[in-house]
Amino acid sequence: MEWERITGGLCAVKGVRAYGIKEGNNGLALIEGRGKAVGMFTTNKIKAAPVRFTKSQLEAGEGIISAIIANSGCANSFTGENGMRNAEKMAELASSSLGVDKKEVAVASTGPIGRQMDMELIERQLGEVVKRLTSDEMGSMTAAKAIMTTDTFHKERAIRIGADDKERVIIGGIAKGSGMIFPHLCLSSATMLSFIYTDASLDDETLKRCLEDAVDNSFNMVVVDGDMSTNDMVLLVSTGGGGEISEGEFKNGLNFVCKELAKLIATDGEGATKLIEVRAKGAASVEDAREIAKAIVRSPLVKSAVFGERIDLTCGRIIATIGSYTTSGDVDPDSISISIKGEGQRAVLVAKKGKFVDLSGATRDIMKGKEIFIDVDMGMGEREATAWGCDLSYDYVKINAG
Amino acid sequence: MEWERITGGLCAVKGVRAYGIKEGNNGLALIEGRGKAVGMFTTNKIKAAPVRFTKSQLEAGEGIISAIIANSGCANSFTGENGMRNAEKMAELASSSLGVDKKEVAVASTGPIGRQMDMELIERQLGEVVKRLTSDEMGSMTAAKAIMTTDTFHKERAIRIGADDKERVIIGGIAKGSGMIFPHLCLSSATMLSFIYTDASLDDETLKRCLEDAVDNSFNMVVVDGDMSTNDMVLLVSTGGGGEISEGEFKNGLNFVCKELAKLIATDGEGATKLIEVRAKGAASVEDAREIAKAIVRSPLVKSAVFGERIDLTCGRIIATIGSYTTSGDVDPDSISISIKGEGQRAVLVAKKGKFVDLSGATRDIMKGKEIFIDVDMGMGEREATAWGCDLSYDYVKINAG
Repeated sequence: MEWERITGGLCAVKGVRAYGIKEGNNGLALIEGRGKAVGMFTTNKIKAAPVRFTKSQLEAGEGIISAIIANSGCANSFTGENGMRNAEKMAELASSSLGVDKKEVAVASTGPIGRQMDMELIERQLGEVVKRLTSDEMGSMTAAKAIMTTDTFHKERAIRIGADDKERVIIGGIAKGSGMIFPHLCLSSATMLSFIYTDASLDDETLKRCLEDAVDNSFNMVVVDGDMSTNDMVLLVSTGGGGEISEGEFKNGLNFVCKELAKLIATDGEGATKLIEVRAKGAASVEDAREIAKAIVRSPLVKSAVFGERIDLTCGRIIATIGSYTTSGDVDPDSISISIKGEGQRAVLVAKKGKFVDLSGATRDIMKGKEIFIDVDMGMGEREATAWGCDLSYDYVKINAG
Repeated sequence: MEWERITGGLCAVKGVRAYGIKEGNNGLALIEGRGKAVGMFTTNKIKAAPVRFTKSQLEAGEGIISAIIANSGCANSFTGENGMRNAEKMAELASSSLGVDKKEVAVASTGPIGRQMDMELIERQLGEVVKRLTSDEMGSMTAAKAIMTTDTFHKERAIRIGADDKERVIIGGIAKGSGMIFPHLCLSSATMLSFIYTDASLDDETLKRCLEDAVDNSFNMVVVDGDMSTNDMVLLVSTGGGGEISEGEFKNGLNFVCKELAKLIATDGEGATKLIEVRAKGAASVEDAREIAKAIVRSPLVKSAVFGERIDLTCGRIIATIGSYTTSGDVDPDSISISIKGEGQRAVLVAKKGKFVDLSGATRDIMKGKEIFIDVDMGMGEREATAWGCDLSYDYVKINAG
């Protein structure tokens, strides 16, 4: 089954209304749409209050979500009992303004750690947002903008799967994330936030399997800085009412949407001038492939060399990175081949079975583009994985040195 | 037993001669001194030829080393069979010019990965170095300078343990390292290089135990960028002839010398403007304490905040880092306390048992100094560990973007 990109973000799904506002660093987004929900949350041992609150909401209730309230400007993390009360209060406020069950409200936050929420601000902003809730594409766009922190653009994607009405399914989502990006989410327990809606009618277990697979291949393969947030969260809400779809077809579609959103996060990494996509293939196991690909996009030395458009420096650093991180199995340096391709350029073979190719003729042009593709063939097996990251620029330091 | 810092680096040990020269990026150091040797090598799965060669030299022979030949400007890593032949050739050249057994020569290299050695250059430089070998402090200093790459100063330390001649033991060493610093060395299997000599008469097993303990508490606790080199190596050579010393006393002295050299590497981290020392205490296990301390000094967000002298941003990022990396055991956010102290300043309590202290009155002065001490009390147990790193500056990006 084919899919087609459509506009509208999460509002592309029928019955979903949203809106968001942002005043300075403080934003508030509200999304309304009832359906079965599954979530994945940060595995950081220190979890922000909204993460703990929303996890317990999903576990305690019927797994039904009617609304998501999410703020930027304060992470509500490392805030003790008061923080938990404020997360609950956010759910209460959303519940009463929308007339939905408090048990069916999810809460998410992003921003600096260690500060208490300004609940008066949240209440005032919520009042404005509720009045403007809309099912047109402005709803999704303003919600996506409201949860931005150091993001430079808002992130949304939607697809329509299936040709005719009978099998038509929509998946639409928004995401935010720019710094402190090294999500490692799991079902039972990611500051990237992503809220995805679909009208596919699938049971909880199928939704969980599909989300876990999609997140493992997308958000969990993005590294901006290697710092894992206490607030990462991905929620998938299925409103039902869509056409018939197989688990496999839905999984493919959800994978596409999540990968697109994940790539937008990597592209918008703090200070980033280039998106780096690394495919590690020929690995003995998927775990090895994942570790190798992530280690390369995480390496400050590789990231700096890509920023400097130095193909020669990039190669050697990739080699060191491969060896440091492989989890199981051995690495045979003599079987490693590497090629690098800049956007709109031909791929350049830089290492062939353990030997560097003479790059004295290579120019900086190869790495001039906005997207750099690194392809590593371990020559050890059949497994592969792809990771996304960005270069390390002066602006990353500037942004984070405050 | 007390010890005293003395001058002379590794030439402080009687019978040790050294010299080094550097021409542009290409340096060669030669150290002569016969004794029992133990070594620790990088655990990177891709090991440079000199690492594999020197490991096999120590394993095959009687564990005796008569000379160390070390070059900078070429890592001789990812260089295939030709690389191994060149590492062996370096040992042969040192062997014939000094008239020592080839089996007793250790080889080390540091520099860019993937290039073949220029053996003509090595041969010519060796000819000059051999003529100038000396046991005075110029020997140690020139050798330490010859192995520098992006280092901005040479690194050496020596101590004398014991008051009278009968119990007098000398430990002296040199080190290099500035970038690609995330050593993880082990006995059976780090591009920091360190060569340490002592006249202590201890057996192989005792030397191994002491080196492993000292490296685990020093070089293995230094993170500049989190990139592990294919070339890291620490060699300890005991020439004998010194006074009587217990294993405990020697271990303490060796720990001191290794920690001093490790701190010099962190201080000289690429682009570094500040040394960061993190002590994680109150941990449930030493492993937890090590992981937490290293995770904090590795975090690009913490490093950038320290560069920006922003105590407020530093705190929240420390929290996220603690939660991401703890290996075993749980973390209770409400039991965490953190204090930060700048060089020459009073320590400032920034978080007390799960709550941030109001820092609105805190000024940037706290973090103005060249050394920043971060003290994290997990409130979970009695174990502790200390790690060293440096801030992330514009110059790190500049140096590594080529």
